[in-house]
Amino acid sequence: MEKTFSLDIPDTAKPRVVIIGAGFGGLNVVKHLKGKGFQVVLLDKHNYHTFQPLLYQVATAGLPAEAIASPIRQQFKHYPDFYFRLQKAVGIDPERNLVLTAGGALRFDYCVIAGGARPNFFGNGQMEKYAMPMKSVPEALDLRSQVLQTLERATVTADPGERRTLMSIALVGGGPTGVEIAGALAELKRHVLPKDFPGLDLRQMRIMLVEALPRLLPQMSENAGARAAKDLQRMGIEIHVNAMVEGYDGRTLRLKDGSTIDTYTVLWTAGVIGETFPGLQPAWMEKGRILTDPFCRLLFARKIFAIGDIALMKTTQYPKGHPGLAPTAIQMGRYVGKHLPEIHGGKPVPAFKYLDKGSLATIGRGKAVADLPGKLHFGGRIAWWIWLFVHINSLVSFRNKLLVFASWLYSYFTFDKGNRIIIRPFARKDDEATAEMVRANVPEETQVVH
Amino acid sequence: MEKTFSLDIPDTAKPRVVIIGAGFGGLNVVKHLKGKGFQVVLLDKHNYHTFQPLLYQVATAGLPAEAIASPIRQQFKHYPDFYFRLQKAVGIDPERNLVLTAGGALRFDYCVIAGGARPNFFGNGQMEKYAMPMKSVPEALDLRSQVLQTLERATVTADPGERRTLMSIALVGGGPTGVEIAGALAELKRHVLPKDFPGLDLRQMRIMLVEALPRLLPQMSENAGARAAKDLQRMGIEIHVNAMVEGYDGRTLRLKDGSTIDTYTVLWTAGVIGETFPGLQPAWMEKGRILTDPFCRLLFARKIFAIGDIALMKTTQYPKGHPGLAPTAIQMGRYVGKHLPEIHGGKPVPAFKYLDKGSLATIGRGKAVADLPGKLHFGGRIAWWIWLFVHINSLVSFRNKLLVFASWLYSYFTFDKGNRIIIRPFARKDDEATAEMVRANVPEETQVVH
Repeated sequence: MEKTFSLDIPDTAKPRVVIIGAGFGGLNVVKHLKGKGFQVVLLDKHNYHTFQPLLYQVATAGLPAEAIASPIRQQFKHYPDFYFRLQKAVGIDPERNLVLTAGGALRFDYCVIAGGARPNFFGNGQMEKYAMPMKSVPEALDLRSQVLQTLERATVTADPGERRTLMSIALVGGGPTGVEIAGALAELKRHVLPKDFPGLDLRQMRIMLVEALPRLLPQMSENAGARAAKDLQRMGIEIHVNAMVEGYDGRTLRLKDGSTIDTYTVLWTAGVIGETFPGLQPAWMEKGRILTDPFCRLLFARKIFAIGDIALMKTTQYPKGHPGLAPTAIQMGRYVGKHLPEIHGGKPVPAFKYLDKGSLATIGRGKAVADLPGKLHFGGRIAWWIWLFVHINSLVSFRNKLLVFASWLYSYFTFDKGNRIIIRPFARKDDEATAEMVRANVPEETQVVH
Repeated sequence: MEKTFSLDIPDTAKPRVVIIGAGFGGLNVVKHLKGKGFQVVLLDKHNYHTFQPLLYQVATAGLPAEAIASPIRQQFKHYPDFYFRLQKAVGIDPERNLVLTAGGALRFDYCVIAGGARPNFFGNGQMEKYAMPMKSVPEALDLRSQVLQTLERATVTADPGERRTLMSIALVGGGPTGVEIAGALAELKRHVLPKDFPGLDLRQMRIMLVEALPRLLPQMSENAGARAAKDLQRMGIEIHVNAMVEGYDGRTLRLKDGSTIDTYTVLWTAGVIGETFPGLQPAWMEKGRILTDPFCRLLFARKIFAIGDIALMKTTQYPKGHPGLAPTAIQMGRYVGKHLPEIHGGKPVPAFKYLDKGSLATIGRGKAVADLPGKLHFGGRIAWWIWLFVHINSLVSFRNKLLVFASWLYSYFTFDKGNRIIIRPFARKDDEATAEMVRANVPEETQVVH
């Protein structure tokens, strides 16, 4: 059964572009389509754009959630013939040119799939059930709650083994997110927790970074990986490379080499897969990404584009596709927004060309690694300043810049991470102790121990 | 069955003071007990102090949640023999001097009940089920989500009656919270929503303030109530005084005079009752508040104190108890913290004396009302500046001050409320449309309409 309700978007003579996803890619398509004679519809399951590069700071109490989220409607408030709809795309019908949502089917003349990536657990059901992903603001807040909750519980447990388990955190995936969150947790452990939890022996707190490949930051230079490993080790992070995760039952993380780690907190950043949906044919995809031609169009559906993390455009220079970074999504979004009028008019357009801006990862205060174009690899304080500048500068709204700047300025001088509040306790379904705490905080359900 | 586990708090020779609640009252007891020879245990169900006077700004997208929450452990990080425990008190045993929590029973030498107030629905089960309270950060975020969600749904509904229902908000209770939230919603409607929702006819948006007594702000002067009513009416708020609420089925709010209001969003601020728990005997209470002597002690349990909203100290000047305002809690907390050593030593102490600092309520940009001591009643821009200054100044941490100041500065110059993000969709259990949206945003449960 298919509803024909059109999300209250008027049918006009203008060609309609439906963009799925308000990440870096989607926003840039919208921005560059302005005033070009299209009706533009943007769909997202959130009413805000998430600045993903700083999610890890929300998770580690460095930033308020609102500092890295910008309301989508705000971005395009003076944009005629633009429609935002709070809808998740649940399917596409490439033959009839329809995007399917819970609110009904939406006809399009052109569609841009820019839904980004979601965690890839590689079919490991246990990891999917018990490990925590961190691709959205609520997930980052969940991780923040989990880290703080387990420390609160460690404070009152009488069982030393349980305490160690509660005080252990395993980060699976040694890419930028894993490295950045490890560094932030190390700083939390060093500068904040000793004062917050004077009763806890923090030497028992273990933060482990687990990577299947032989080194950290495999997407970056050897130099960056080695520097990150050295810095993190100095900060007290246990680094396990060549370490494949086999399973996790919610308490014991098992590695392929037979070793185990007892922990209630496992973050999973070890893989992503495109945020696809039914209607895309298997032949159009490879490893969860959508194959495109050099013009960002789907190989067999020329009215549909795919950009950013979800797209796989194989070029001579990038035979495995472009790096899964914000600049790729931004540049592809700009490309589609800029050239769609010509494509629509049947004019020839140049192929997409990726401009490598290098990559950065921060490790901690005054510590970052940078791979800049021209094989310029370096780390340390200068890389950190570049990282700070690039991130403040890339934030979408002035309000975000202001909040992030104020928060960072405060943290820089105080060594404090002031957002360590458990807004909503995180409860894994199997986790009775936490569920108990959640229940205890809901007045109706409290019971007297009298 | 009673657990004997003591939340891992060591038994020492020092007398132990257990404080229930980290609101204005509880924090001030802790602060003033420092270095006075007591072991101090603070219990709260949140790991942060909530600055309640600004909750309404979190709800109306004026402030990030983190701006008005300060981590409790942070406040007392250099405080020897102080213990914070993330526990809700679920009972008290005044005979054996025990506070009961989900984590076990805790012995005390002195106990200070400072749990504040929770919404009082006066036994109206329908209101309790369907109306939204706003006493905590998650509840404020729920209201923010609800207001934004209903507007998103109004955008796509084809049914005009449904659209009007989605665009109506009823605020029950004409006290400071009701007035402040009405003003903030009116500004949202005027300055932000027209740009955000160009497709909605915002003249259909109704914001109603419903008060059972004959005027707004019944706790303040006649002058303040009249001024607030005049300002709010000019801002487009519908004010219903002498209007008693009879019931609400989740869609239709019924008043005693037979009139009805169709709305999915009913905020309830029409009454509070002390956040009490089993073990307090009915004879010790009156109208949900705990009777105390002039020294903040329970009438029949001299080792137990009650302060703030939960306390009812009848004096000649305040025969019905002191006003339910932050200054009462702060002053009682300071009083107990300051004089407990003398009380413990058997020395005479002066009775608690309330210093009336007046009261303030803001209505909108440049609009507030003030009742200052000495029957000084005025409104307008000066009252608003005083309000701003008092609130920034009262925030507990420098970090909170910085975030609030930066946010207000931004809003002042841009007329923007930048935090209008739905972090987690709010779902009332009976509300299928919202539940559907929530489900639609959870990847596992999405279904194809194909």
